[in-house]
Formats: sequence, C-alpha cells, structure tokens
Amino acid sequence: MSSNSFGKIFRLTSFGESHGYSVGGVLDGCPAGHKIDLNIIQQELDRRRPGQSYITTQRKENDKIQFLSGIFEGKTLGTPIAFQIKNKDSKSSDYSHLANTFRPSHADYTYSMKYGHRDHRGGGRSSARETVARVVAGAIAKQVLKTLGIHIYAYVSAVGEIHLNKTHTDIDLSKIDSNVIRCPDPRKSEDMLKLITSVKKLGDTIGGQVTGVALGLPVGLGAPVFDKLHADMAKAMMSINAVKGFQYGGGFEMSRQKGSQVNDEFISDKLGIKTKTNNSGGVQGGISNGEDLYFDVAFKPVATIMQNQFSINNSGDEILLKGQGRHDPCVVPRAVPIVEAMMAMVLLDHYLRNLTTKL
Amino acid sequence: MSSNSFGKIFRLTSFGESHGYSVGGVLDGCPAGHKIDLNIIQQELDRRRPGQSYITTQRKENDKIQFLSGIFEGKTLGTPIAFQIKNKDSKSSDYSHLANTFRPSHADYTYSMKYGHRDHRGGGRSSARETVARVVAGAIAKQVLKTLGIHIYAYVSAVGEIHLNKTHTDIDLSKIDSNVIRCPDPRKSEDMLKLITSVKKLGDTIGGQVTGVALGLPVGLGAPVFDKLHADMAKAMMSINAVKGFQYGGGFEMSRQKGSQVNDEFISDKLGIKTKTNNSGGVQGGISNGEDLYFDVAFKPVATIMQNQFSINNSGDEILLKGQGRHDPCVVPRAVPIVEAMMAMVLLDHYLRNLTTKL
Amino acid sequence: MSSNSFGKIFRLTSFGESHGYSVGGVLDGCPAGHKIDLNIIQQELDRRRPGQSYITTQRKENDKIQFLSGIFEGKTLGTPIAFQIKNKDSKSSDYSHLANTFRPSHADYTYSMKYGHRDHRGGGRSSARETVARVVAGAIAKQVLKTLGIHIYAYVSAVGEIHLNKTHTDIDLSKIDSNVIRCPDPRKSEDMLKLITSVKKLGDTIGGQVTGVALGLPVGLGAPVFDKLHADMAKAMMSINAVKGFQYGGGFEMSRQKGSQVNDEFISDKLGIKTKTNNSGGVQGGISNGEDLYFDVAFKPVATIMQNQFSINNSGDEILLKGQGRHDPCVVPRAVPIVEAMMAMVLLDHYLRNLTTKL
Amino acid sequence: MSSNSFGKIFRLTSFGESHGYSVGGVLDGCPAGHKIDLNIIQQELDRRRPGQSYITTQRKENDKIQFLSGIFEGKTLGTPIAFQIKNKDSKSSDYSHLANTFRPSHADYTYSMKYGHRDHRGGGRSSARETVARVVAGAIAKQVLKTLGIHIYAYVSAVGEIHLNKTHTDIDLSKIDSNVIRCPDPRKSEDMLKLITSVKKLGDTIGGQVTGVALGLPVGLGAPVFDKLHADMAKAMMSINAVKGFQYGGGFEMSRQKGSQVNDEFISDKLGIKTKTNNSGGVQGGISNGEDLYFDVAFKPVATIMQNQFSINNSGDEILLKGQGRHDPCVVPRAVPIVEAMMAMVLLDHYLRNLTTKL
Repeated sequence: MSSNSFGKIFRLTSFGESHGYSVGGVLDGCPAGHKIDLNIIQQELDRRRPGQSYITTQRKENDKIQFLSGIFEGKTLGTPIAFQIKNKDSKSSDYSHLANTFRPSHADYTYSMKYGHRDHRGGGRSSARETVARVVAGAIAKQVLKTLGIHIYAYVSAVGEIHLNKTHTDIDLSKIDSNVIRCPDPRKSEDMLKLITSVKKLGDTIGGQVTGVALGLPVGLGAPVFDKLHADMAKAMMSINAVKGFQYGGGFEMSRQKGSQVNDEFISDKLGIKTKTNNSGGVQGGISNGEDLYFDVAFKPVATIMQNQFSINNSGDEILLKGQGRHDPCVVPRAVPIVEAMMAMVLLDHYLRNLTTKL
Repeated sequence: MSSNSFGKIFRLTSFGESHGYSVGGVLDGCPAGHKIDLNIIQQELDRRRPGQSYITTQRKENDKIQFLSGIFEGKTLGTPIAFQIKNKDSKSSDYSHLANTFRPSHADYTYSMKYGHRDHRGGGRSSARETVARVVAGAIAKQVLKTLGIHIYAYVSAVGEIHLNKTHTDIDLSKIDSNVIRCPDPRKSEDMLKLITSVKKLGDTIGGQVTGVALGLPVGLGAPVFDKLHADMAKAMMSINAVKGFQYGGGFEMSRQKGSQVNDEFISDKLGIKTKTNNSGGVQGGISNGEDLYFDVAFKPVATIMQNQFSINNSGDEILLKGQGRHDPCVVPRAVPIVEAMMAMVLLDHYLRNLTTKL
Repeated sequence: MSSNSFGKIFRLTSFGESHGYSVGGVLDGCPAGHKIDLNIIQQELDRRRPGQSYITTQRKENDKIQFLSGIFEGKTLGTPIAFQIKNKDSKSSDYSHLANTFRPSHADYTYSMKYGHRDHRGGGRSSARETVARVVAGAIAKQVLKTLGIHIYAYVSAVGEIHLNKTHTDIDLSKIDSNVIRCPDPRKSEDMLKLITSVKKLGDTIGGQVTGVALGLPVGLGAPVFDKLHADMAKAMMSINAVKGFQYGGGFEMSRQKGSQVNDEFISDKLGIKTKTNNSGGVQGGISNGEDLYFDVAFKPVATIMQNQFSINNSGDEILLKGQGRHDPCVVPRAVPIVEAMMAMVLLDHYLRNLTTKL
Repeated sequence: MSSNSFGKIFRLTSFGESHGYSVGGVLDGCPAGHKIDLNIIQQELDRRRPGQSYITTQRKENDKIQFLSGIFEGKTLGTPIAFQIKNKDSKSSDYSHLANTFRPSHADYTYSMKYGHRDHRGGGRSSARETVARVVAGAIAKQVLKTLGIHIYAYVSAVGEIHLNKTHTDIDLSKIDSNVIRCPDPRKSEDMLKLITSVKKLGDTIGGQVTGVALGLPVGLGAPVFDKLHADMAKAMMSINAVKGFQYGGGFEMSRQKGSQVNDEFISDKLGIKTKTNNSGGVQGGISNGEDLYFDVAFKPVATIMQNQFSINNSGDEILLKGQGRHDPCVVPRAVPIVEAMMAMVLLDHYLRNLTTKL
C-alpha cells in the first residue's frame, strides 16, 4: 500500500533507492506565488550531505538538486514541485557480498521477507539517503514559514553520555552551525567531538539526541484527538532512520512529577496571554498555545560498525561479517537538518489545515 | 479540516463531547465475517470506566455500549460499525463557573482561540472521555488479531519515581488485571498504590508510564519511510491525552550506547530466523521482524488538581481557581486499556495493509 | 478497506443498514461557529422521506434526526457532528423469503460474494436508505454555502421519454417544490406524473434525469488534474444509488460538435470577466470560472418491480420472484434532495480546499 | 491542497508542466516482485504521443521514458516507481504572445485567478501533456492485471455525428490499433477519418466518444456507498482533459426505460452464476458481478482552433486571437490509451483494496 507520502495538505511523496538512478520527491500542496531561494535549499542539502567532515561517512555525493516542475520564474506555481538528486558515488560493488546477507539491526531481513524482491545495494530504499527528499521539502517549508514569522531550529543536545544539560532558552540558537557537531555550546561540542573521534577509532558507533525548537508559532495549530500537533510531530520524528524515542515539553521527566509542580499557570500582560512556565512544550490539548514548541529525539548508534559481527545469510547459515565500507560514527550532526525539515513540514501542513477551521 | 479519524484501512472516526448526548465512533474497514464477542468489548470499557476503584475519578458512568450498525447475527458485515455510549453522570453545572476560565495545562485556552466557539462542559471534545471510542475499536481489533495469533498487552511500568525495573519478558503478563494499578508485579503495585493514595490526600496528581507489548507478530508489518510501524505506533500513543513521550525497544537509553553493544545478532534454528537480543523492539527498518514489539509511554500528571491555582479568564483577568470537581489522582491504571486499544488498531491496520504488498 | 467517507476537508462518514438500529453519519471538518438551523435539515430529510406522496414507496418513516455531538448552543463546534435517524417501519419479515435470493439488478449477489456475510433485510447497506446521511450533511453544507453567496438547486428534468427541454436559465428555480415531481415546469410535471402513475399501475418502474445547478460560485474552486471540480462532482453523483450517467455543461452533445460552435468567448464589462456562452458548464480546466455550474444525472428505473421475474437463489437454483413489498415507481423526485446534498458537499469541500491555495 | 494523486492503494502522484523540464510521476503501492516489460510501457506512450499521424498535433516528442527508482533487475521492488519524460519540442516562444491572454474554453483564466502566478507556456500544468504520467502508470497496472486474467480495452466509438452503433460484444477488440482512428470497425473508421480531415482543413476541431471495456473481472471489486466501482471510474474518466460526460452499462438510455425492460436476470450453469443481459455494465451495488464492465466517455472538441476568435487579456481588453500553433483536430484517437490507463489504475486499485475485505 502507498506509504511514501507525508502530510495532508502540504504533502511530500518521496522516491529512490540508495544506488538507483536518483532519489527525490514530489511536493504537492505548497501555496502558490512563494519566492523560493534555491541556494537555501542547496545549503540545507549540504548540511545533510555525506563527506562534509571527518566525522561523517566518506561517500562523496555533491547532492546537487535538480527541479523538474512546479517553480516558474523563481516562484511556486501551486502545482507539484518535483525534484531529484542523482546518485553518483554509489559503489554498488562494495555491497555485492551483502546481496544474500542479513546485517544485524539493518532492514535487510525485514525487506526480504516483506517484499520477496530487494535492492541490496547500499540498503536500497531503507538507506537514510532517502532523507534528502525530506530536506528539500523542509527547506521549502522553512522559507514559507519564515514569511509567516515562524522559525525552525534543531541542534545536537547529546552524544552518548555527554548531555548539553541546558534548555533552548539558555543557548544561542544562532551558533548551531558554528561547529561540525551542530551543538551550540562550544565546550560541550568539543567533548562530543572527542568522544565521536575515539569511538570511530575503535570502528564503533555511538548514539545521541537532537532537540527541535520552533519559535513564533501562532495559537491554534494542531487538531484535537488523533492529529494532535505533537502526535504528528512524533510520527514525523520517529519516521527518521535510527530514531528510538521522542518526548516534548517536560517529556518522560513529567511522568515522575506531580501536577502541582508542572502545571503551566496562565498570565496576561500587554502582549497578550502567556504561560509562566512551559512544561507543556507549546502545545495544550494538541493545539499550539503560542509558547515555544520544543522536543527531543533519541537516535540509536549506527548499525554499520567496522568490527566483525556474526550474522546469517538468506539460507540461514551463520556467517562472519567483516566491518568494511563507509559509515557515520555518529549520525546526529547530519540528522539536525532532517529534524528541522520534518518539523517544518508538520508545522506548515498544520498551518494550512488551520486555515479551514473558521470561515 | 477533518482530523477525527485514525488508520488507513481499519479506520476509526470518533465523535462526542464529554457532556453532549453521547460519545462514540464509526469503525470502517473491519474485515467481514468476524465473530465479535460484545461482552469482551464491554469488559474493556469497564477497564477504562471512571469510578472503577478508589483511585479513579468518581464520575459514575456505566458506559454501556450500543451498536448502531455493522454487526449482524453476531458477525461483522464489512460495513461501518457505528456505536455510541451515552453520557449520563455529566454534572454540567459543576463546570458553569469554568465557562470563561482557562484552566492551567488544560485545552480551554487553545480550543477557545482555535474555534471561537467552545463547549466548556467537562472539557468538551478535549476530555479524555473521547477515548471510549478508541477502546471499543481496539477491543474489536484485538479480537480479530487474536484469531491471527497476535496478542496485545499493556501494563503500568511506573508511577512517579517508582519504576518496575523489569522487562516484559521477566513478568507474568496474565497478572496485569490482578490489582487496581494494573502493574503485574505485586510488590511494586502496592508501592504504587500507596504513592497514589498519598498524592490524592494532598489533592495532587502524579504521572506514570505504561508499557505496551505485542506477541506473535508476523514478519512484514509496517511500511518503509513515513509509515514505519513504530512511527505509526508513536503517533497512536502520543495522541492519547496527557502523553508526553514515547520510546520503543532500547529507546532513549540507546542514544547513550555504542553500536557494538546494541546490535541484534541474527541466529537461525529449526524454528526459523530470530535475533539473539531484541534492542530493536521487534522492528527493523520500520517493519516487524517477528520478535516481540515493546515500547513505553510517558503520561504527565493530570492537570486537574484539588489545590488552589492562579489563572486567567477570557477577559485576561487574573482569577483564583479553587480545586473542586472529580478527577483521577493518577491516570495510568485507566490508560492501560487505551494503550492496548491504540496498539491493536495500529497492528491490525498494518496487517491489512500488508496483504496488498505482494500478489 | 474503509470506503464510507466522502470529501477531503469537509468529510462525511456514513453508517447504517436499512433494517438495523439506525442510519446516520459523522461529519468532520465543518467550520466552527456556524449557526445551524435544525428545521432546515429536517425539511431536507422530509423531501427525501419515503411515503411523502402517492408516487413514492409507502414505507412509513418519520425520519426524525437526532444529533449526538458537534453542535452546541445552536452553533457548530468545529468538532465532529454525529447524527442518527432510527429505523422504525422496517418490516424485516417482508424480506425473510429473500435471505437466500439474488434479486435481478440488485446488490444481493455482489454483496454475498464480496463479504460472505450479508444483512439481507431491506437490502442492508446497499439500500438507498443510506442516503439520509448524505442529505443531513448536505443540508449543513448548503447552509454554510448560503452565507458565502452560493446557492444550490436540483430538479427533475426527465421522466422516461418526457424531457423538460429547457435549460436552467429558462425556468423558475423557486418552483421546484411546487409539485410532487419536483419539476419546475407545471405542464411537464403533469405529464410526468401521469406517466409515473400509469407505470405504477402496471407494477413497473421508470427511469429519469435530475439536473443540478449552482449559482454564485466564486472563481477558483476545483483542483487541476485528478480532483477537477467536475470529476469530483461526477463521482459524487455516480455514487448515488441507481445512477448510470453524468454529464456537465454541453455534455454528450458536445462530442458531436465543433470547436468553433462551442468555445465560450470571454467578455469583460463593469461587473468583471464573463463568458458569452456557457457550454463549459461553469468549469474550465477543472476550476470554476464564476459562471453557473450545471450538470445532468441519469437514473435507471428502480430494480424492484411488482411483476414476476425469474432469478436464482444462493444454491444456484432457478426461482420465481413474485413482485411484492414496497417500492418507488420512479426514483427521481426523491433523488432531488440527494443530488443537491452531494453537490453542496463537493462545493463546500472545494471551497475549504481552495483556502490553502495562496497565503 | 495536494490534489495530484490518484488511487488509494495503487496510487499515482503526477507532476510536470508542458514546457518545464519534464513531466512524470511517482507510482506508489504497486505490488512487489512483478516483472515489468519496459517496451510495453513505451508502446503505450507511443500510442498517446503527439505527431504519430496526420490527424494529431505535429509537436515532435519522442516521449522516451526514464525510470528513476522502484524497478530492480526488471522487477518491481514494492517501493515507489518514479519516472520522467523530458520535454523536448516545447516551442515556448509560440506561446509568448499568450502570456497575458485568456484563450476561450481553456484554463488560462481560471489558473490565473486561482493561483495568481501561472506558467502560460503550452498551457503549463493544464496541458494534456500531463496524461503521459497516467499512461505510464496505467501500462504498469495493465501488466499486473493481465497476470490476474483481467484485460483492458478502449476504442473510439464516435467522432462527431458518426457513431459506431455496435456494442463491444459485436466487434473484434484485437483490431483497435489497426487504423489511426482506433475504431475497430474498418468502414466506420474510414468515415471518421474523412470527417476529421475535412474539419482539420477548416481549421476547426470535432468531439467524439471513447468506449472502455474490461474483460475477466472477478466478482467483488468496488466498495459500497461512496467508492462504488463505477463512481471511481467516472471520476477517473472525468479527470481526463476535455471530457464532458460518462455513462456505464445502459447509461443515459436507461433513464428513458422501464424496470421490466432492463433488469438483468440471473442464471446459473456449470460455469457459475451469470446474468442473461448486462444492462448493469458489470457492476451491481457498486461492486463488479463478473460480467463485462463497459462505459462511454464523451470528449468535447479541442478548444484550440485555427480560426480567429475574440477574447480578452488579463487587463480585460478585448483582443483578436489568431489561430496558430499546433493542435489535434480530434482528440479521441490519442485519448484511447489514456482511457485504458485510467481504467487499469482504478481496477488494480480496487483489486488490491478488495484483498482486505475478508481474512
């Protein structure tokens, strides 16, 4: 069943295998008449691109985007925006020994069983290379949101045991891209870099967390019951490769607290209605309340490691997998633009949905 | 925009305000010819029902279900199954003083702003009373899943700081309903009950966690990219009132670990292909791999407390809210059947979706 | 698979078997804050109701509507509007001899084969009684559209060989309900009534046509490519029981004509841009152009006749069906409010969709 | 709002402007493991291609298809099948004089008003060039349907006043492509060719009809109420450019007939249950009954004519449009593969949907 689309009004349909001709998408429902800066889209792709630094996979993809439709004279037409990014440095031969192998904690086995027929090269459709389509759609969404006064941020808040231990209100969000980790705290980012480097030397990988923040949201985005703003946000984040957990506002910590501790008291001043605290994370009853939206996303360590592992092949025989190929020792720095992209898509979709609530 | 439906093939559309005539739903896409035990549905409703024990709200609802269509001679027709549960003990007068008040960490303010017009009585549509429709649909899904060999469980794994600290493989899942907490460990459940009782005496509330488990899943449920099995599960859980976080398999803990620690090695024996460990939580690449599916859901403390709180009314004036009315000191025991219901709906929907993957 | 919903933003999910407890629906996505006149809804139901005149089925249903949710203090809440109409005069015993019979040109056989399990009483879900839910949703849509200056009409334009032979611009649309046929031309309606009466005497039935007209449409409703305004309208009409054909604007006649004959020339005056002729039927490129929308719907004769017919039972044995029971000799007078309802739903849905086209 | 997708399980999302970089689509939900013959897809494109004969537009497009994803080693992967056809002979300069002009019975005016910003070159998104994506998806669907024993045909049944006057059971469906008209009756096709030739000489255009036929359908495709098989078929056909009407089975003629004349009597023999006649057109209650499905589609004459016409520009000034450029004097021969494609998509989608009806 069709399942490669995301969003109800602002809707991305993505396509592409890691080592196929190209990866890309069709973005339908983007409002007409918006000026789109193609350089900004390319910059976002460059933030996600492999090979951008010592701590990312060395696959060399320039990830140049090509638009096929939907933009005319620099502005959106209101028609589908189709785009592709060609796969260049796809060393399919690197993967020929894996055609019949099920790598641990990868999707090889489940894809084989579900579909019968599988493109094993570079993980095929299960590769995180698919996320380039999300980044493009998100970069367009971000530009539209900006004209509405809504600003989107994400940053690395943990690598392994090293946690930023600051809320988004205590850090300078303009510093996110000041280092290769994309953690806006200089000291913590250095610690994180050291940890990743040491893990990489061992041929191992390490998990981490990304925090997302949206500023400038109007009151009223999100829909009651099933399409709560944070429920759609959770799905968006959990759909990113390697994500194992999501929490927003006070999150899991609130499950250990009392109502009297965490209720957000309303106050009113010249600027309007606000809450004194924001344990709600900007959402009440599934609907944005005008406060900052913030959440955390937990990423597991990359499954591909440069160490020997036992596994089986598709005949059920035990085999020894030798660590080889290219991989990221820690995925969170490259995940930052993906988190931002999915966040932007959810918010613009709900912004458009909300236009039909009252006449 | 329509947003009160959940699922793609097995699809629930829910309706109802807390103090309106009734709450209910229309369940479309349920396979035809299934024998439905109406007693089991009523039992599930009774597990969710208010007033079932000392530690739940004292609103008296017998929550008797009435079916309007879709079941004939005890079996599903393949047509929409419509049902309602009438609202009886809705003391709307209890809420008249709240018509113009925005309670802290409730949806009063956001609903008012989004819709302009609001049913303030008992929270209206934002009330957790809406979840009865989910429980009914889930109870039907559970019965169908059972015939497919798939079994659904949820239990309370934490109340406040008290955590079960056992995995689902170390507990007896048949003991979930042996106590009012719905925690299958007798000693822990006693501690939890004491904690809730003491919190209740203070007029306060406390958060907690529910763990969900599915046994007997076939390989192949879930769809790549956006509709990953755990992504749809996350949305399902985050859409339940008061939920602040979701994690599956190794969860947030995996963000602190190394690949060499957590990769799940494949093994093969007479019974087929298995994994030695199950940090993946039964899902790889968004698709079930035949291992147990398990996840945790974090609930915040109920926002309604029996203590005085400051807030504002819809004119922006500060007011003092006196704690009164009926409420749950801790929501997780009653959340157990809701978590099970949403889990069952996601799994049956993906089971049906998967039937179209190969011909 | 779920298929009992219609519309993308303004979305009706309908339920109910002809002889079950009730028929009804859940209307999601209706804008909040609209004043709803319940009497108007009941009036529309009365126009569709059986037993309203000599030429309609004598089943006695008062078709009193009951609202379950979504309306508070006379105005829409923006939440789902659920409603039911109870089945009263359902003489199920009239149908017991049909439990194993496949009536000619009815849905008995196809339902049996598709679902395995079937409610044979009164046609079950395949009965046109299902259309009451459409009429309710349409009556709400019509009220909202009216506040937007959009007016909806339908009338009988043919019964058997008797055709009105006038366009909607040549008749008085306020006269539609001035006779039981709902044909606004007094002489033609008399001829039609005579024809139906004579057909009824023979125990036979006769087909007919209904014409739909929308006045006051703004430019811009409808979406290019698949969701063209007339394509969604065609689906809406073809989904009504007994409909065999749809045409809009010049319709089938245009397939016999030349471009130079039928192109609609644009003109401009103080009131804005208009077309000199309107063979386009108010839609160009799938989008409304501000002219009158009009179309024709062809209904076959009702399949239930009071004459003996041969058929088979579910064992494949030939049987003689004796004409008995209650039926309409001609369905089009009662189809008028259904056509109007579906038209209103399509137009309001596209009105709401269009709000997201530009920011 | 997103509206460029068609189908629920087997779902095409199409993209592209007439003079943009390319037109194409993403086909999601195609079952995995199907062998796809790319030559057959190209052949179908060649049947739709401009410049294929004297009576089609002379735009020279070789319409070579390029697949971007979803097919590996000649078989479908179950992942999205993305494809594009580059626009080559797009003489955009031919259209520069039309940038501010609203051509009669074209979509220029409605697109301008709806979107504000428009690609005027060759009609942009409103061009029938968009249908190449449908033909590709349909050619894939047809191949899958063939393995299921379902066969798809369409042919020209009328050009102007010249009507074939035979049902599909009286003609040789293998002869459809034996002439440039795609009417399988040699004498009628000659008459039609003469008519088109004479119309073309006058710089005019002429309408026509296409009949669609599906053989080998199983019982059970189609869903009750809104997604009736013929309702989805009607939408599919009405969404094709220039279509003004749709009828199936006995069609509009049945609106003039009596029940006793047109009811289809069931009979039973060794081969199973059949109907003696087939006025139902293979569908009863919205569900296929195993008989031949057949329907007619009415196309208006192409709006672009080689004669002078009055119109207005976007300032509202009257202008004289001179007939120039390239166009089809009659669109139905090239519409045949498009009708087949849409028919195949609807049938495969419903085939897949039906797999979830019973377990």
